[in-house]
Amino acid sequence: MSTNQRVFNFNAGPASLPLEVLEEIRDNFMNFGGMSVLEISHRSKEFGKILDDAKSLLKELMGIPADHRILFLQGGASTQFAMIPMNLLNGSAGYSITGYWAKKAAAEAKLFGQVNEPFSSSDTNFNKTPVNGDIKVSKGSSYLHITTNNTIYGTEYNEYPETGDIPLVADMSSDILSHKIDVNRFDLIYAGAQKNLGPAGVTVVVIRSGLAKINHRPLPAMMKYSTHVENDSLYNTPPVFTIYSVMLVLNWIKRSGGIEGIEKRNLEKAKLIYDAIDNSTFYKGTAEKMSRSIMNITFNLPTEDLEERFIKEAELQGLVGLKGHRAIGGVRASIYNVFPIEGAKALAEFMKEFERKI
Amino acid sequence: MSTNQRVFNFNAGPASLPLEVLEEIRDNFMNFGGMSVLEISHRSKEFGKILDDAKSLLKELMGIPADHRILFLQGGASTQFAMIPMNLLNGSAGYSITGYWAKKAAAEAKLFGQVNEPFSSSDTNFNKTPVNGDIKVSKGSSYLHITTNNTIYGTEYNEYPETGDIPLVADMSSDILSHKIDVNRFDLIYAGAQKNLGPAGVTVVVIRSGLAKINHRPLPAMMKYSTHVENDSLYNTPPVFTIYSVMLVLNWIKRSGGIEGIEKRNLEKAKLIYDAIDNSTFYKGTAEKMSRSIMNITFNLPTEDLEERFIKEAELQGLVGLKGHRAIGGVRASIYNVFPIEGAKALAEFMKEFERKI
Repeated sequence: MSTNQRVFNFNAGPASLPLEVLEEIRDNFMNFGGMSVLEISHRSKEFGKILDDAKSLLKELMGIPADHRILFLQGGASTQFAMIPMNLLNGSAGYSITGYWAKKAAAEAKLFGQVNEPFSSSDTNFNKTPVNGDIKVSKGSSYLHITTNNTIYGTEYNEYPETGDIPLVADMSSDILSHKIDVNRFDLIYAGAQKNLGPAGVTVVVIRSGLAKINHRPLPAMMKYSTHVENDSLYNTPPVFTIYSVMLVLNWIKRSGGIEGIEKRNLEKAKLIYDAIDNSTFYKGTAEKMSRSIMNITFNLPTEDLEERFIKEAELQGLVGLKGHRAIGGVRASIYNVFPIEGAKALAEFMKEFERKI
Repeated sequence: MSTNQRVFNFNAGPASLPLEVLEEIRDNFMNFGGMSVLEISHRSKEFGKILDDAKSLLKELMGIPADHRILFLQGGASTQFAMIPMNLLNGSAGYSITGYWAKKAAAEAKLFGQVNEPFSSSDTNFNKTPVNGDIKVSKGSSYLHITTNNTIYGTEYNEYPETGDIPLVADMSSDILSHKIDVNRFDLIYAGAQKNLGPAGVTVVVIRSGLAKINHRPLPAMMKYSTHVENDSLYNTPPVFTIYSVMLVLNWIKRSGGIEGIEKRNLEKAKLIYDAIDNSTFYKGTAEKMSRSIMNITFNLPTEDLEERFIKEAELQGLVGLKGHRAIGGVRASIYNVFPIEGAKALAEFMKEFERKI
């Protein structure tokens, strides 16, 4: 395989981007009023339009209510793990512990208050997510935090907890825009871009206006949601090129049938691979069927040696990034929104062929 | 002028990048082992090499001692304004107040301790920087913070304060790599990339190892220097593409004669424009001659109307971004490391022609 022939990228993130978008970026790279897109000012009318377009596209695609604001921040979901309790935690908050990233988020909150864990699947190596009724949020909690999809363990929420008056905060880094949700049920949604929205380097935050005004403790300007809401993500120089790329990906999602079109393709892609698992005794899924993720599919082969061989031979056929996270081992196929259906077909075929050959 | 004809970009940042580098990015955009550079994993060997190259190039170009570590962080200099006192301030610190950004940095420090101001040029609208002897740092200060170049007011330090045992912390966002410095005199240097190093979206931090271990208060992982030192800037997903671009710019600086070559060109570029000011009674520089910046040249014309006309007519000739910051008005020519000498010549010519015509 030539180095330039496009592979199927199953990495957990940074992930695939649409070929059309990549070509669009490349072909227009120098065409911004006598500058490259890497050189334009964040105060220019060109970037003003990019930012406005990115916000309206996200608003339209997700059905974001008028009362929610859209921010483009730096520092990844890991910085949100800190900003959420810094801004919102007063006393205690609930964290539903469904995996590695949920634990990381909870650890930061402990610096700023008491953390309750109304749900944890740690006893079963995070093979499931809660269903309604599993989670009882303590009265007076500042918020409940959930991680809607768990990249490492291949699980995803199929329904979201009812929290009444208590704000619901969700890390959607690995499944934002993958299926229709009612944004109005959420008070804060955040997602690093590099799995479903664009290249690494920007984090989308969707926050209910009222929540952005909460002020429990003195904070540096960059750590306050109010700073970024008041300055429309332009308090300091934003990552211009990364936001531009996200805008183009959102546009591509719109052209691809919007969230309904993406969801349909996501279900098809996931079914191809889960069927290959379920129609075999050779492959074994790690997540409980009820909690299976349509974004990250995790499974084992009978032995670690076979897993290693599987991953190596797949790579030779242009199926790259299938190694599972060290916390769980095995195989992981990350098939985010942009990942092509041909890649899922190719993997399902490869799985059958590999099993047959052994 | 066609929209695609390259202009001279005098913006204060994001700023010009070398045409060669832009073409290199564009031409190799899809060539990363069957992926685009926007898609590669931050754990891939491709990115490992990019990060290593970026660090070694910066180390070589600046002459960074073995005891200093190089970090690539997100959140801009504004996030450093907070991280510095969060990590280092225990009691009091000194801030030399030479402009808008120095004041912003000091404001964040006040959340974490006492701020002394051993120097301020606010009474003379920040038209000068201190010389040695101007600054006496209070004994027991956690550090002294300086802003080595002031984009808005067109001033720059010509010599750096002697601080003895007290750590010297410097915001070099607008003049990093512009001239030879003795890095060993500094304990922490930081710079947003978008003026002298690459596109917006990454901040370079050069920190003495010992300083990164200081631990005065419990902090979220992302806000601790130790996190990023221990994880070699890979604690969470870094802005892969932006770091790649910075690496290419550093490589270009090396090919262009290193810091000596850049400094020589910077002095030439600045002289062309300062001479045009000094050889006229029509243009009037705003900074004291001793404190003049070689990066941002600020001047006035006899009236605001003439300034407006100057900026407008310059733009029609492809000299864009010359409007001064609203805090000071007038004209500002930002001519960072990468800015071509032809642009400085074109501006000097335009200044003479404009004066002649009036």
